[in-house]
Amino acid sequence: TLRRGKPTANARWGNAASVLVGDFLLSRAFQLVVSLGDLRLLEILSDATRTIAEGEVMQLSNCKNPDISEDTYLKTIEYKTAKLFETAAQTGGIAGNAPEHLETSLSSYGRHLGKAFQLIDDLLDYKGSSDELGKNIGDDLAEGKPTLPLIYTLQNGSRDDQQLIRSAIRQGGLENIKEITAALNRCGALDYTFEKARLATEKAIQSLEGLKASIYKDSLVKLAEASLERCY
Amino acid sequence: TLRRGKPTANARWGNAASVLVGDFLLSRAFQLVVSLGDLRLLEILSDATRTIAEGEVMQLSNCKNPDISEDTYLKTIEYKTAKLFETAAQTGGIAGNAPEHLETSLSSYGRHLGKAFQLIDDLLDYKGSSDELGKNIGDDLAEGKPTLPLIYTLQNGSRDDQQLIRSAIRQGGLENIKEITAALNRCGALDYTFEKARLATEKAIQSLEGLKASIYKDSLVKLAEASLERCY
Repeated sequence: TLRRGKPTANARWGNAASVLVGDFLLSRAFQLVVSLGDLRLLEILSDATRTIAEGEVMQLSNCKNPDISEDTYLKTIEYKTAKLFETAAQTGGIAGNAPEHLETSLSSYGRHLGKAFQLIDDLLDYKGSSDELGKNIGDDLAEGKPTLPLIYTLQNGSRDDQQLIRSAIRQGGLENIKEITAALNRCGALDYTFEKARLATEKAIQSLEGLKASIYKDSLVKLAEASLERCY
Repeated sequence: TLRRGKPTANARWGNAASVLVGDFLLSRAFQLVVSLGDLRLLEILSDATRTIAEGEVMQLSNCKNPDISEDTYLKTIEYKTAKLFETAAQTGGIAGNAPEHLETSLSSYGRHLGKAFQLIDDLLDYKGSSDELGKNIGDDLAEGKPTLPLIYTLQNGSRDDQQLIRSAIRQGGLENIKEITAALNRCGALDYTFEKARLATEKAIQSLEGLKASIYKDSLVKLAEASLERCY
């Protein structure tokens, strides 16, 4: 119902309108890209939308599944989020006539930034207040979405905590959100997730090594740093 | 809940799965089209998806609106349905290396066929039984969707019938489906709609004049004829 502190389109105009207007925006965007007449760009963008859609389906099919592995989770966020950021950064490079090695640097930057962004997003679902975050706390848990903090606790928590989380994922809902947040903190799942995000951010910044110094490069670096500190 | 006599994907797997898998199929299809490397084909297909999405939004924004004109209705079905059939026929011609005048013939065939198809679809919502039709009777009325049979009666029915239909469109629901069907029959709205479909079918078949005789041409003609007689 909330995104970045504002009511979502879905909450405000309903499901049908949001989906159909979303379809319109996507198809209009493709029409604009086609008008550029660049087949390579079209290939990259159509691969990306296919991958993102596949990631969303992967995520949906693992909803309420407590047996998902960390690898499957990481593959899902690579598909549904990292690919979006990767493509945005890469096509920016293409639009600016970047040589191949810089295009690769930008792809890599976007991919790692997107991974960090999604890890932080999944972490924030168990941290902070709804006010700060601008979205609803526990949304993932409510849907039974097995994100990294939960998956880590299923591998490393006490037997009781594992049981608590298995049944929360299976059933969805927020009945035990307090106990679950405590369990995640207890076994270091939130620290583990943050550390993974920090490493991804580091890799994102390292990917930019080949770019010469400029205010644009500085901005990309700051954007990556900010992704670790964001509240929403 | 029913399409062509079978449960819809939405009824069977829910809204999220249907929408996301639909997104996947659309993006996968675009990926395949991009791989053909034909920019003109991409232009036609991206224009078509944009137009279809716009038609769906137009339809949604006129839901529960009894003041929609026949022209707006016809524009909506041209966008949301006729464009789909037009593009299918036209791109078939392109794939078969048809010369320009035949490509135009095929576009025109598809456009008129699609128009006829949608008119019959809107007519069938007030005719036949759920068994025959393979979809639910009165679906449009239930959503307050102002289709041609209703619009015609709003222009040509008795004052009482106009009142009945205005409030049915405004409120949605199937409470008065029997009285409404009777009103549509009384003022000839179903005959009027069928006649429009028949004329569109005739135009579709006329569009094929430039094609030399073949079993393929025969099939296109039979398809157009069958669109008038279909039960679902």
